[in-house]
Amino acid sequence: MVNSVVLLRVGRGLVNEVAEALAELNGVAEVYSVGGQYDLVAILRVRDNEALAALVTEHMLKVEGVTYSETLIAFRAFSRHDLESMFSLGME
Amino acid sequence: MVNSVVLLRVGRGLVNEVAEALAELNGVAEVYSVGGQYDLVAILRVRDNEALAALVTEHMLKVEGVTYSETLIAFRAFSRHDLESMFSLGME
Amino acid sequence: MVNSVVLLRVGRGLVNEVAEALAELNGVAEVYSVGGQYDLVAILRVRDNEALAALVTEHMLKVEGVTYSETLIAFRAFSRHDLESMFSLGME
Amino acid sequence: MVNSVVLLRVGRGLVNEVAEALAELNGVAEVYSVGGQYDLVAILRVRDNEALAALVTEHMLKVEGVTYSETLIAFRAFSRHDLESMFSLGME
Amino acid sequence: MVNSVVLLRVGRGLVNEVAEALAELNGVAEVYSVGGQYDLVAILRVRDNEALAALVTEHMLKVEGVTYSETLIAFRAFSRHDLESMFSLGME
Amino acid sequence: MVNSVVLLRVGRGLVNEVAEALAELNGVAEVYSVGGQYDLVAILRVRDNEALAALVTEHMLKVEGVTYSETLIAFRAFSRHDLESMFSLGME
Amino acid sequence: MVNSVVLLRVGRGLVNEVAEALAELNGVAEVYSVGGQYDLVAILRVRDNEALAALVTEHMLKVEGVTYSETLIAFRAFSRHDLESMFSLGME
Amino acid sequence: MVNSVVLLRVGRGLVNEVAEALAELNGVAEVYSVGGQYDLVAILRVRDNEALAALVTEHMLKVEGVTYSETLIAFRAFSRHDLESMFSLGME
Amino acid sequence: MVNSVVLLRVGRGLVNEVAEALAELNGVAEVYSVGGQYDLVAILRVRDNEALAALVTEHMLKVEGVTYSETLIAFRAFSRHDLESMFSLGME
Amino acid sequence: MVNSVVLLRVGRGLVNEVAEALAELNGVAEVYSVGGQYDLVAILRVRDNEALAALVTEHMLKVEGVTYSETLIAFRAFSRHDLESMFSLGME
Repeated sequence: MVNSVVLLRVGRGLVNEVAEALAELNGVAEVYSVGGQYDLVAILRVRDNEALAALVTEHMLKVEGVTYSETLIAFRAFSRHDLESMFSLGME
Repeated sequence: MVNSVVLLRVGRGLVNEVAEALAELNGVAEVYSVGGQYDLVAILRVRDNEALAALVTEHMLKVEGVTYSETLIAFRAFSRHDLESMFSLGME
Repeated sequence: MVNSVVLLRVGRGLVNEVAEALAELNGVAEVYSVGGQYDLVAILRVRDNEALAALVTEHMLKVEGVTYSETLIAFRAFSRHDLESMFSLGME
Repeated sequence: MVNSVVLLRVGRGLVNEVAEALAELNGVAEVYSVGGQYDLVAILRVRDNEALAALVTEHMLKVEGVTYSETLIAFRAFSRHDLESMFSLGME
Repeated sequence: MVNSVVLLRVGRGLVNEVAEALAELNGVAEVYSVGGQYDLVAILRVRDNEALAALVTEHMLKVEGVTYSETLIAFRAFSRHDLESMFSLGME
Repeated sequence: MVNSVVLLRVGRGLVNEVAEALAELNGVAEVYSVGGQYDLVAILRVRDNEALAALVTEHMLKVEGVTYSETLIAFRAFSRHDLESMFSLGME
Repeated sequence: MVNSVVLLRVGRGLVNEVAEALAELNGVAEVYSVGGQYDLVAILRVRDNEALAALVTEHMLKVEGVTYSETLIAFRAFSRHDLESMFSLGME
Repeated sequence: MVNSVVLLRVGRGLVNEVAEALAELNGVAEVYSVGGQYDLVAILRVRDNEALAALVTEHMLKVEGVTYSETLIAFRAFSRHDLESMFSLGME
Repeated sequence: MVNSVVLLRVGRGLVNEVAEALAELNGVAEVYSVGGQYDLVAILRVRDNEALAALVTEHMLKVEGVTYSETLIAFRAFSRHDLESMFSLGME
Repeated sequence: MVNSVVLLRVGRGLVNEVAEALAELNGVAEVYSVGGQYDLVAILRVRDNEALAALVTEHMLKVEGVTYSETLIAFRAFSRHDLESMFSLGME
């Protein structure tokens, strides 16, 4: 499983609309509206780098209202939870 | 449940050591070493704001090797997963 | 009570108009036009995180003239004043 | 009454200690530990610019642990609360 | 007397025009076109904070061509000149 | 007369001390402790570029406590005051 | 052979289209869509500085969708591969 | 002779056109298209500050395609070449 | 094959030494000393994300003299060269 | 001839000393102490990229007092002066 955290800024007043659109996409596990200098953070969990490329460049960045995105691709995961089994059913 | 995403930079060459120390803390659900301008991203899931304050200011920021942290507190979560039930067993 | 400080930039010449519109919103306790790299600072005092999410994403960010906002959500408050009682009457 | 909002960064792991020290100072009405790129936000309420100068340059900036501060001095206040009467008893 | 230094950026090729318009405003003592990352610096000298608020938010920021401004409000003045008498005749 | 505005940051808690030391230097007309992302602003008025070079690089930057300086050299001055006569007596 | 690394940002949702257009240009050896604060990275390998100038300023920067580019021209190459022979056949 | 180095960014794909237009201006000794975060660097050599003000604010900044400029005015020159004689014939 | 571009800054005067040390590491295909705001750029080519994590966090970041690194992990490669075969012999 | 413009910051109070040391180096044609966010600007004129690499990485960056440098390598020169002949006698 390849995990990524995507930091996003969106057009004025579109925070919730963009969050909902992103959360619909296969491979987007969680989306949060957040305080701070970013508007949204998305957690992606996909099968491999190629699936990640398709999800980000062909789907997420085409969602209306996204004005800035920065994808932080995970090298390694450190967790006491068994993330693979929790999230990998029906993985993109 | 209160979710937060914490962006971190650490001292040179301490990425894995700091990641492991953070992942041991109660309330830290996941830690990722990542590409990009940050070194680590931690996903926190705790009971309320007071628990978040204690986790960040009394534990995370005291971990040796952390040189910068930026806590993005979630307003709202958007997900097809039932995050509450997945993560709230034995919640801090 | 959940406190937040929101740093804002507004369109050229709209400082006072935007400040007045924000101060009308329930949950916005104080708005200041300020010197420095930001135009306005708003102090929000609301019941809980969900009320904060609604106030920021569904009301403040939709006010005409806001071009940038950064919400600093308070972990903890430190004060010799009893802020809870001073501000919690008729709390949003 | 002159109001100011001060954005602060502090040395690693000193968030609560510095917040408490600042909240003790006459003229500091509220201090919040916050998420985002700053560590603390202080709300100052003093009699005039000279009192503000003394509070910031002779007291706040000398508190051990403060590494960065940015004082946003308020031009005007916009609020449905009567801030003057609420905060001006025993004003510095 | 309240002194302030305002750092400004203006639309391309409008440096002199905006400088002249600002220098006409009561309370603007001096305007300089400058080298470096800013285009203009204005020195304001007014009676009190309220006059400063009016000058900046109701006049300066409404001058055509101003694209960015950052007002550095003076806490204290240090000078061997007697600035008060030099500039306070016919003070705004 | 050559005018310049110098933006300065100083070591923690040294604002007033550095301001006084700078104001003693010939050619430094005014020094202000200010709100915002800078600590001090100095207004220099000297005879020519060579005097400016000497003042900045051989005196100001050697004052203990200065950690950052940015000299904005004026191209042109725009003012209803006759700055030349006001400041040029005993000019450096 | 002159090597260069070009960091690029592109218009929203145009990552793959711009990458393909750049990869068609003679002298562009490799283009990667990447995570982090940039969208694309191009590796250029050309005969000399003049060829580099033509490639960047007359071709790459004219590709529709490029919004920011930063060309890092290589002083020296350090590699266990014999890059010259690997890439110099049919060099621009 | 007053020397200055001007860092410039220009509209997409206009690097060479803007460079040629700038190099035509009296007082502009050299223009380079460069790698890095700027597009062009111009070296100006003029008689005095007033000539510099006219060249930058009335000519350079009015050239079509310039989107950002930062003028670094020289305090002093250090060179084994006799720049004055090399460049001062027919000086603006 | 997983490709990455790493932007690096190094301690003063250590550019060549650090470049040589990095180029010795298995998985580092090319290192360039470059003009611009970074000192070095390394091109990594490894078998998978796990090999990338080990190379960056356990080897590159431990090289003496590295003061900043930003790893841009490639989603997709676009090239007329057959990079896989050119670089994958004896791949880490 | 390869031209480059190097933007430099130096340790506090060392502007003139570092400028003189740099101007002594073969290949450094001119050094200016400047206003703005940089301290010095050096103009380099050398035979080829390899000479540039040696000058910057083996000599300039080793000069005591240099704390930051950014080398802007010229793609093309645009000038009514014949720079090649003016500067290429005894070229490094």
